[in-house]
Amino acid sequence: MGQNFYKRDDRDLRFVLHEQLGIERLLELDAYRDFTREDFDMILTQAQKIAADVMAPTFQDGDREGARFEAGRVMAPKSFHDVWKVFQEGGWFALATKTDFGGQGLPLVIAEAAQEFFMSANFAFGCYAGMGPGNGAMIEKYGTPELKERFLWKMYDGTWSGSMCLTEPAVGSDAHMVSTKATPDGDLYRIQGTKIFITSGAHDLVENIIHLVIARIEGAPAGAKGVSLFAVPNIWVNEDGSLGEPNDVACIGIEHKMGLNGSATCVMNFGENGKCRGYLIGQQGMGLAYMFDMVNLARMAVGLESVAFGTSIYANVLAYAKERVQGVPFGKKGDRVRIVEHVDVRRMLMNIKSVTEGMRALVFKAYFMEDLSKAAATEEERKIARGRLEFLTPLVKAYGSDRIFELGREGIQILGGYGFTKEYPVEQYTRDSKILSIWDGTNYIQAVDLIGRKLNMEGGKIFRDWMDEVLALIRKGRADNRFPGEFTLLEEALETVMELALLYNSYLKEGKIDLVPLTATRFLDCVAEVAIAHLLLEQALIAEGKLRKQDINAADRAFYEGKRHTAAYYANNILPQVFGRARIIKIENDSAVRIPEDSL
Amino acid sequence: MGQNFYKRDDRDLRFVLHEQLGIERLLELDAYRDFTREDFDMILTQAQKIAADVMAPTFQDGDREGARFEAGRVMAPKSFHDVWKVFQEGGWFALATKTDFGGQGLPLVIAEAAQEFFMSANFAFGCYAGMGPGNGAMIEKYGTPELKERFLWKMYDGTWSGSMCLTEPAVGSDAHMVSTKATPDGDLYRIQGTKIFITSGAHDLVENIIHLVIARIEGAPAGAKGVSLFAVPNIWVNEDGSLGEPNDVACIGIEHKMGLNGSATCVMNFGENGKCRGYLIGQQGMGLAYMFDMVNLARMAVGLESVAFGTSIYANVLAYAKERVQGVPFGKKGDRVRIVEHVDVRRMLMNIKSVTEGMRALVFKAYFMEDLSKAAATEEERKIARGRLEFLTPLVKAYGSDRIFELGREGIQILGGYGFTKEYPVEQYTRDSKILSIWDGTNYIQAVDLIGRKLNMEGGKIFRDWMDEVLALIRKGRADNRFPGEFTLLEEALETVMELALLYNSYLKEGKIDLVPLTATRFLDCVAEVAIAHLLLEQALIAEGKLRKQDINAADRAFYEGKRHTAAYYANNILPQVFGRARIIKIENDSAVRIPEDSL
Repeated sequence: MGQNFYKRDDRDLRFVLHEQLGIERLLELDAYRDFTREDFDMILTQAQKIAADVMAPTFQDGDREGARFEAGRVMAPKSFHDVWKVFQEGGWFALATKTDFGGQGLPLVIAEAAQEFFMSANFAFGCYAGMGPGNGAMIEKYGTPELKERFLWKMYDGTWSGSMCLTEPAVGSDAHMVSTKATPDGDLYRIQGTKIFITSGAHDLVENIIHLVIARIEGAPAGAKGVSLFAVPNIWVNEDGSLGEPNDVACIGIEHKMGLNGSATCVMNFGENGKCRGYLIGQQGMGLAYMFDMVNLARMAVGLESVAFGTSIYANVLAYAKERVQGVPFGKKGDRVRIVEHVDVRRMLMNIKSVTEGMRALVFKAYFMEDLSKAAATEEERKIARGRLEFLTPLVKAYGSDRIFELGREGIQILGGYGFTKEYPVEQYTRDSKILSIWDGTNYIQAVDLIGRKLNMEGGKIFRDWMDEVLALIRKGRADNRFPGEFTLLEEALETVMELALLYNSYLKEGKIDLVPLTATRFLDCVAEVAIAHLLLEQALIAEGKLRKQDINAADRAFYEGKRHTAAYYANNILPQVFGRARIIKIENDSAVRIPEDSL
Repeated sequence: MGQNFYKRDDRDLRFVLHEQLGIERLLELDAYRDFTREDFDMILTQAQKIAADVMAPTFQDGDREGARFEAGRVMAPKSFHDVWKVFQEGGWFALATKTDFGGQGLPLVIAEAAQEFFMSANFAFGCYAGMGPGNGAMIEKYGTPELKERFLWKMYDGTWSGSMCLTEPAVGSDAHMVSTKATPDGDLYRIQGTKIFITSGAHDLVENIIHLVIARIEGAPAGAKGVSLFAVPNIWVNEDGSLGEPNDVACIGIEHKMGLNGSATCVMNFGENGKCRGYLIGQQGMGLAYMFDMVNLARMAVGLESVAFGTSIYANVLAYAKERVQGVPFGKKGDRVRIVEHVDVRRMLMNIKSVTEGMRALVFKAYFMEDLSKAAATEEERKIARGRLEFLTPLVKAYGSDRIFELGREGIQILGGYGFTKEYPVEQYTRDSKILSIWDGTNYIQAVDLIGRKLNMEGGKIFRDWMDEVLALIRKGRADNRFPGEFTLLEEALETVMELALLYNSYLKEGKIDLVPLTATRFLDCVAEVAIAHLLLEQALIAEGKLRKQDINAADRAFYEGKRHTAAYYANNILPQVFGRARIIKIENDSAVRIPEDSL
């Protein structure tokens, strides 16, 4: 067992859920009427205990030992097996899945809050644990009753697992171009092709894996409409649920990676001997559309993973900064102090704290919208929530995953020379997090999704509604005369975002099309920073309300004070980057396009 | 042997040396009169050949095999031994050292140009190779004639090596607080103490290592003035130069690190048995002052290392981008294209290219100033060069080392999923480079050095002279009506820097002292970006001059076109960040200072 670096707490998460979002509203909805606030609390308390005591000690093992590929078999790190058992015993796999086949039926805000603890403890383990319920949810939504009954119970209780097989050697971002073939064979299909970068494609934590494979049925049209989804068991499952013969699926190697070494990233061969069979899931030609459901959830998860990493980084470097004595503060004389007293270290701590807490507010707001989009009482409410969710998703995915690598850098810098060593966990958090900006749609894809689709959804109404929500808070802050400087910055930043959005619309109309991809990632950062500043200032107003009460204890007082300063820090020190980026965007310099390829 | 990722060329480096700096001027100075332009060319050609053919194949070995610690001995990666022999045969260790004891006597601009190739090939190897000549230069400057004769020949020819032993467990940035003791013992001193993070403190590439140890002579005053420098052979060296007994120096472990795994980072025990002897170097109490010489060179080297990494990253991802077919350009229809044709990829390529080339211009300008500060014909010229060098050093160190990690991130992003794998070298460049922002004075220390010392050197004259040089180029650009938009931005950015400098002076006078460390790193980035935009635009004007000639070949034409676009890209897309940062600085928000520690 490696060292236990689980130092984080749950105070800010509970603040977001209960004091900001007010998720108790969910308890009044049909879908969640059987739960109580106490259930939610107990689940989170228990999840945190498992994260801290069971998962966190396997964080270093996973990295040092790594997933191993030997003689055609893939072995997960040894210590992961014990965690898997604890997950099975506690039913921790399918928290947010409906209860029909053994899921827990929790709202996402609670299920993903538990996940935040788990990911803070050991994300590599989570890469195995999440696949069974993730794939299961697809089969539950689009599969036949027989398949559901046959697969889901075991996919939800951790007896079996899953993998999502999309990417191919020549096909990364071009998902519609897959060349894996599916040939009709009675009610089934013969599957043949190679898939790469398959997370948890093979491992020894379970007795079977139900792969979801994107393939093209012979004779199907080219492009997205020819692509279908298949469930392909690693070992064939008989009608009575017993395991049959191996299904001609082979892992032929795993990737050696910068991070997430405990997670097996597999090259998978399907049907090398022509004997791989699979079930069509849902309708022909709908493969990519179905998969988009899953990818959207994965994009949200990327944001959550960023928050989980940021929180672990922060807790570890804060503890170090409070102990490590070094240097006399700038311009002062006297004894050396703990580095938490150095202004530059505080600046870096506040960067990590404010961005992480801001991201958490954004991510859980999005999860809350997803819950409401499914469970709210009226279609009108569900529709509004769905629109807001779709608008926030690219921000959650791209902003979080780009920032987390920078926050890792800040954390390493605070630790100084120790930060570069494996004695402290921050270098590993940083390495592990690097995949997040790439998988589930690169961050550039998110930015183009934001400009190309999300801004103009419902004729721009979704975007305007979000702006109105931000404006409402600005007005509230003004009315109460709170944070005047910060709200002025927020208003200016919001206007800047609106101005840029109009600019993009004019580019699209005027054929200045190259200017969109040239600056899209910068624009996404601008929108995300406004969204986060909005949520952090909302938190600050809530915190001030609590501080006015007489009966709060010292810990709460410190926490609420922290929220005030955190919002102020973000609004004054991070949000104004919007203005610098906007200036760059408006220059419209296209040297990057015009430079001849030979001159690169 | 690992894969060879050496894909970079030398065109931009030769452009900086010969077409921008005009280093041929050095050939007229006494110190370099024995060299010819042909000598310089031959040395660089040969260095590049060794880098590409001999060093680069050991880049992966060093990472995968790593330095090993077994039974008290440290082993460098096996393949490094053959490179060491090639270095010995070719006399590649002490290029810039005077010829009295076997150095090559080259100007720094040439010696460090060779180093850039070496560092691009395998920086971990360079960590061993650089220490002998580095330490030797200190002994040559401050040691006795006997010691020089006894140590230097072998330190310069690679028979022996060196290590710089400064940091202690409780002493990182507080160098003056070292607790290692030196007790007089006849003409010698008994050394006792533990040093950590000692690069190349022990290894098997050489038969002996001459450690330079910072220690406090018993009874010496507290603080910097009590600290002296000692030469401590790992194995005692007899007066006739033969090796004697081991000198009670032990490596008791090596660090396991995020990167630079091939380089041994040692914990060193001196005098555990009371038998470690060393020679005082120079005068008592001057240890830190002497060391500062070496540290200054090390800070420049950090900038060079950043350039070397950036160049390797760029060459590798550009090659990939020109081959990898994926996606249809934004807003277009038709076939998929190579990703070099995607605008967002070009943006990332231009980020890497422009920052790397800009940093190279800055680094070699600084080295050129160092050469002139030693060898220029008049004291006036030497003094001006010294001032400019001192001003540029913190920019070179901090800007380069903060940017390189970001450029690694861009490189990984361009490679997509492959970027996260060890199949491509960019993840390793990124990991290896992370130490650069920490060692040789953290980047925050550089920023405070810039504001606290460099701005006000000679009553501000050094700073003003630099600004005048930038202004002169702006006037030249205006007069010739070249790059009007870019020069306008440069002028505004320069004015912004000047305004901020005045602001810092007012902080220092008005006791708003905390505002300095709060924003110092941002200010340093502003100054560095002005300095780099200046040098890149200077390059662009030179390139335009060359393009006006009729007789240039296609390769040169493409190169000069590239310089024009690169300068325009940097000026329009990176330099304007100055305005965003300045706005943040001027808000003067101090939440990071005011937040109570309990609220962090």
